[in-house]
Parts: sequence; structure tokens; C-alpha cells
Amino acid sequence: MSYDTISFLSDFGRTDEFVGVVHSVLRAMAPDARVIDITHDIAAHDVRAGSLALARAAGYLAPGVVMAVVDPGVGTDRRRIAVEVGEGASVLVGPDNGLLAPAVALVGGASRAVELSDPGYQLEGPGATFDGRDVFAPAAAHLCNGVPLTELGPAVDPATLVPGMLPVSHRDGERVVAEVLWVDRFGNAQLNVDPDEVPEEWDRVRLRIGEVARSARRVAAYGDIATGEVGLVVDSYGLLSVALDRGSAAAELGLHAGSEVALDGGDDQAHSETAARARETARPVGVRLGREVDR
Amino acid sequence: MSYDTISFLSDFGRTDEFVGVVHSVLRAMAPDARVIDITHDIAAHDVRAGSLALARAAGYLAPGVVMAVVDPGVGTDRRRIAVEVGEGASVLVGPDNGLLAPAVALVGGASRAVELSDPGYQLEGPGATFDGRDVFAPAAAHLCNGVPLTELGPAVDPATLVPGMLPVSHRDGERVVAEVLWVDRFGNAQLNVDPDEVPEEWDRVRLRIGEVARSARRVAAYGDIATGEVGLVVDSYGLLSVALDRGSAAAELGLHAGSEVALDGGDDQAHSETAARARETARPVGVRLGREVDR
Amino acid sequence: MSYDTISFLSDFGRTDEFVGVVHSVLRAMAPDARVIDITHDIAAHDVRAGSLALARAAGYLAPGVVMAVVDPGVGTDRRRIAVEVGEGASVLVGPDNGLLAPAVALVGGASRAVELSDPGYQLEGPGATFDGRDVFAPAAAHLCNGVPLTELGPAVDPATLVPGMLPVSHRDGERVVAEVLWVDRFGNAQLNVDPDEVPEEWDRVRLRIGEVARSARRVAAYGDIATGEVGLVVDSYGLLSVALDRGSAAAELGLHAGSEVALDGGDDQAHSETAARARETARPVGVRLGREVDR
Repeated sequence: MSYDTISFLSDFGRTDEFVGVVHSVLRAMAPDARVIDITHDIAAHDVRAGSLALARAAGYLAPGVVMAVVDPGVGTDRRRIAVEVGEGASVLVGPDNGLLAPAVALVGGASRAVELSDPGYQLEGPGATFDGRDVFAPAAAHLCNGVPLTELGPAVDPATLVPGMLPVSHRDGERVVAEVLWVDRFGNAQLNVDPDEVPEEWDRVRLRIGEVARSARRVAAYGDIATGEVGLVVDSYGLLSVALDRGSAAAELGLHAGSEVALDGGDDQAHSETAARARETARPVGVRLGREVDR
Repeated sequence: MSYDTISFLSDFGRTDEFVGVVHSVLRAMAPDARVIDITHDIAAHDVRAGSLALARAAGYLAPGVVMAVVDPGVGTDRRRIAVEVGEGASVLVGPDNGLLAPAVALVGGASRAVELSDPGYQLEGPGATFDGRDVFAPAAAHLCNGVPLTELGPAVDPATLVPGMLPVSHRDGERVVAEVLWVDRFGNAQLNVDPDEVPEEWDRVRLRIGEVARSARRVAAYGDIATGEVGLVVDSYGLLSVALDRGSAAAELGLHAGSEVALDGGDDQAHSETAARARETARPVGVRLGREVDR
Repeated sequence: MSYDTISFLSDFGRTDEFVGVVHSVLRAMAPDARVIDITHDIAAHDVRAGSLALARAAGYLAPGVVMAVVDPGVGTDRRRIAVEVGEGASVLVGPDNGLLAPAVALVGGASRAVELSDPGYQLEGPGATFDGRDVFAPAAAHLCNGVPLTELGPAVDPATLVPGMLPVSHRDGERVVAEVLWVDRFGNAQLNVDPDEVPEEWDRVRLRIGEVARSARRVAAYGDIATGEVGLVVDSYGLLSVALDRGSAAAELGLHAGSEVALDGGDDQAHSETAARARETARPVGVRLGREVDR
């Protein structure tokens, strides 16, 4: 086998049989490949959320084929693509709508790409609404079975792929103006802010969310947050996250993906001599996930 | 191994450990079999919805054992059965309550069937409420391990199996009176209508849902539907589906599984000379899914 | 391989990519191990519910590594542990917060335990918030790969492990005062009552829930419960469960995990000569799940 693992992310949900049918197609076409479900509960049609989840997972995925399908344009003339990274270490398969871009950038960029336009490597479906089953799963299976990337369709210049759209935090005077990238199951709200964008001297950080200001304390663990207190934790992906202990910070503070949160040092700020310096060296998250991603 | 894949569908949900326990039993009893989850989020006790999901998936499942459990009668005297199809290509295992019938019919009908009544091939459970764990999973594992079908229990005449109950669309004068079979995660409402039941000349189709009439346009892809417009798409199983672009048609139009939808040509209809002919040759969906299924 | 199956339970949910990332780490580090998901929908931070689900599943899990993560104290100084049972038949990995204790007790108690404190067997993560990925999954993978338990960290006296907290039913005069352990997907409410705690002579059992009394009939199967009737069923784990036929007993009676339910013989009770004797021999559920568990 050329590849023996297929990592699979989608917005198909688990309620319908979509995910199971794709697994069945993979089992029938590439019986020895192992399929790892990353998640299938990306909100329907939410390409940005899917691209962020894929980017978060990217550093941990087993080398092989990555199949990602959040594809509101299915059946229209958007391209279906396979993107090779790491000089062939892995191939990402999915629609060319920005979904794959942040993960591709994060692992070093595309070395080659093709358009999945050869019907000889697809299933014939009655409609044009389920490319996960009819186009992407067969492509993933063929790659595992040793079909060369370039057999699957004509080459595509990686520079023409639709870029990802990731928000980059910016500074407004003393403040870091950030955005919630993701609210997880526990209600933690991940910000597009690296820990070193916020000066270490700020033991407490003031969060401004709309008209409301809340003071948050930097802690190492959720369990270090006191009852009634808001914490700022370096999360498992290395970004700052707004959290409560055993409660939902998102619910408490009215945060959701896309919410703006401005951070400043509150009363500490005036006294911080190194704050300005720290902020000057701050790396925006867009660069962290790859050069293509910006807006 | 006689069979090396077990495709598994149920209404167990994912919140409890039921699915995991069945996987564990299969892992312990048939360690080399691969288990493919079709879905476990069939609405609790909804045999019809389970039978439709199984039938939709049937054409894509890997040959092997198919284990389906939506079984409100568990512990009562309904039969537990294993049904062989394709002269032994696959065996479907589950309760004899109509759940398996449409899938069996779709793949060519039963060649043999047995009743799973031999306690020697079952786990001893403390209660009679979890046949998925105690009866169906062991039967699936034994089949994978090479136990012949006829060892698992006495033969059952396939003609005596409980038939599936699938609604068939019908004509009322000029109209096609249909029913929603399924609302998927995206809010698309699948009708029991083949595309050729609706004359191609009808560029727009009038949908009557209760007292309301809406005009729908036939399109090839969800993305071809304009904002505010209702589309009629040939879905991935070859049936007509009522859809919006990036929105829920079911929520917009108040549709759910079982809703009646009548289709006619609206103003186009009077001018369509071939409409009557097309409708005469219309194949009701019940036949499409197999001869046994009708009501 | 030392172990070839990893059974995995958590409160990570399926919406985020947490479960997929852990699977990916396991795939990369122990490619031949099979991972069985028990459930990942334990309510966030609900250690008790997680420990009960693990205990219910324990008797059915394939021997190997069991990885359980419901860990509100992640990043704090609670211990991360690996607990060997069955003289090495299996190892349970997770936080030392009581989550593993009932399952360990149920399968015969711990033979050895270690603290997972050696960073050489962990992934380096940017934060301290995802030990499932960074500590527990690597430990599970190393165990599958043949790393001896004692290599993973210093020995821990099993007697010092945090015990589980399982409620035990008790008698108040003639009544059995019980608690709902679990409400399953179907709305069945499992009580911490063995069937032999309730005299067989009580064909009907009176349930007192707060101010309300309802009569329940003992039946063998959900399908034996009449419309409008409440049933008491011996469930698939051998405990009494309050149930309706094709409806949610929990919703109907306002029950949830932790609700108190008192059972008596109603009018039958006065006539039951053997009731008192039966109750005297009643085994509280705490003992059934293991000696450590009590409160």
C-alpha cells in the first residue's frame, strides 16, 4: 500500500448514514486502509470551522490520506482536488473551497495538486450531491491502493488553490483585538492570540466583549480557576483560551466563533514597562498556521 | 474467515455505552472482523426510519454481515433472524420486525433464513433487554468465524418474514401525491418520487404541503438554488429531494418524515403534452426498493 | 504486541476533534492496536457518570488497555495513573479521581499501579489541558508496544487510589430507598436495586418519587408494558430499571441520575409473608460493583 491511513473529517453529522456509507465504500475499495474519524460534526456548510478543526488536528494526524468534506458547493463547478504535502508523505483530498488550505500551509505547503475530474476513478451516482461517497472516498481508496496522484486528474498549480480565511488578531493602541476561533464542547473559547502576545507581567487581563469588561486571570489549568472567576489558559494547541472551571465560559460571556474580544492589561498595564516590547514581537496566528492564510 | 466485515446500524445512540459494548463483544469474539458503523442515531424505536437508512446504505455496504437493531419488541416473542442474501454473499442479522426487509429486497431477496434461537450461540445476559449484545453480536461474530448459517437456529421460510412498510407515491388526477421519506442533517426532504415521475417539461414544479403551495425549480446541485428559492434536486440515492441552498428546506416548509407533498406542473402543466405519458410510465419507489415493500 | 485492543471512554464529545486526535496519536504510535470507542458523550466533567458507564461496560470489554478520561482536574496535581488488573490481563489508564475505581473493583481489584509521571513517555504539548492526547494515549500506545508498566512511572500503592463513589440503596422500614444511577437514551431509569431486593410476591411495586406515588408492574420486557403503565424491568446489567413501552420513563416521572426513588409493596405488601425475609438478604449494589465503592 502507498498509504494505509485515511483521516476523515466532514460536516455530515452522525445522525444520517452518510459517514457509514463512506466508510463502507472505503472498506470495499481499500480493505486494508484504516479510517480515522477526526470529526463529522462540523456545523453544516461551515467551511471556516472545518478548516480550523482540520488545522488543529493536522499536527497529530498519522501520515497518509486526509479526506475532508465540508462542501456547500457540491455539484457546482468548484474543483475537487487532491493536494500532496511533505513530498508525498500525505495527500489531502476535498473540495477546493479553502477547507484544506490552513492544514496544508501548517504542514509546509503543497508540493503538487491535481483536480479529481477523471470519472474513471469515481463512482457513478444517481445525483451530484454526494461527492464524499462518489468522488473523494474513491480517490482516497485509489491513493491507498497505489494509484499515483497524477493519474487521478490533471495537475493544478498549487498557487491557484482557494486560500483559507483565518482571522488575524491586531493591535489597537495598547489593546490586542482578537476573535474567538472556536468554542469547544466544554465552553472554552479559543482566541487567535499566542500567549506571548500578552505580556507576562499582566497577571490579570481585561477582556472587553461588546460593552462588557471582565477581568481574567492567567492560569495553567482549568482547575486553577476559582469559582466565579474567568481564566485565560494556554490551550492544547498553544493559543489563549477563555475558560471557567467546570463551566462554560462561552455561555457565561456570550461568546461564539467569530466574537470579538479585546484584551488589555487593565490597571496593570500602565505599570508594565515590557508590555509594549512584548507586543511588538507578537506573532499573529495567521502566520503561525501558514503563510497563505490572512485576510 | 467466512465474512470479515460487520456493518452495524441501530437506534442505540452514542451517548450511552451500548454501541461500544457491542463493538467490544465483537472484538472479543471475532477479533479480525472489521466493524463499520452505518449509524446509531436512528430515532429510538423508529423501525421505519431504520429500514430506510439501511436500504439507502445497502447498495454501498461491503459484503459480509449486516447487523441492524431497532427493536422495540426486544424480549417479547418477535423472532430474531439471520437472512442470507446473494447466495451467501452477505447475511443480515436483526429482529424480524420489517427492519431488514427493504434492504433484503433491494439486494435481490432472501435465499435462506434462520431463527436465532439457539442459546449456545448467545451470551447469557441478566435481563432480556439487550439482544444487540447478547444475541445479534454473537451471531454476527459466529458467522465471521465460519459457523454455518444453519447452525445458528432452525430454518425460517423467507416468505414468512415481516415485510417492510414503505410508502408508495400515487397519482391523483394530474398530481403526484408523495411523502417525505427522510429529512437529512442538512434539512433536505427526500420524497418517494423518482425523477422520471415528474415530466422534464416542468421546469418549475408546484409543491402543495397542507394548505400551502410553493414553486420549486429543478436543479442539479444545491448550490444552483437561488436565495429564497426552493429547489428540487435528484439526491444521492436517485430520488427527488426538496432543498434550499445552505438552509433547511424541512424547517422552511414544515416538513418531516411522513409529511405529504403533492407535486404538479403549476401553470406549465396545461401546456405539457408529454406529461401524461411520463406519468404513466412512472415507477413507484416501493418497487424500486424491492417487490415485497408496498402498502 | 503486549496488548492489541485499547478501549476508550471520555467526556470529549464528538463535536470537536478531540477523539479523532487521540485516535490519530494511537494510530501513529501503536499502528496495530485496535481502538474501541465505548462512549465519548459522558456529560462534561461528570466523573460519576463516567465511572458508572465504565463499570457497566467492564464485563464486556476485550482484554487489553482501557483508557478513560473524564478529568476536570487536568493540569492540576491529581495523579495520572495506570492500574493493572487480572495479574496483567488488562491495564486501565486515566486520572486518579475515582473514574476507574468501580471498573477496577468489578474485575477483581488492582494488582499493581504506577503514576504516569515520566515525560519521556509523553507528548510535549503547548498547554497542560489535553492529557488524553499528551499523556494517556501515549501511555496506552507504549503498553501495546510492550513497554512494561513499571517503566511508565513510579509504583503507586493501589490502596491509595481515589475510591469510586457509588450510591448504595438502603432500607427505611418496609421500603427500599434507591437512587437513579443512569437514564439511558430510551428514557429508562436504572436503579441501584438488585431484583432480589424486591420480593417476587410484589407483582406491583409502588414507586415514591418526591410527593408522587406511581404503581409499577414487574415485567420481563419493555414490550410487555401496557400503554400508560409504568414497568420495572431487569435491565441488561441485572439491575431494576423504571421503564415505559416506547416512551421515556425518565421524562414521564421527572427522573434523572441521582433522583431518589423509594419502592414498597403498596397494598400487596401487607399480604407478603416473605417480603421481609427477601429484603434481609438483599445485596446492595455497591458491593456488587466492588468492595471499595461505598458512601
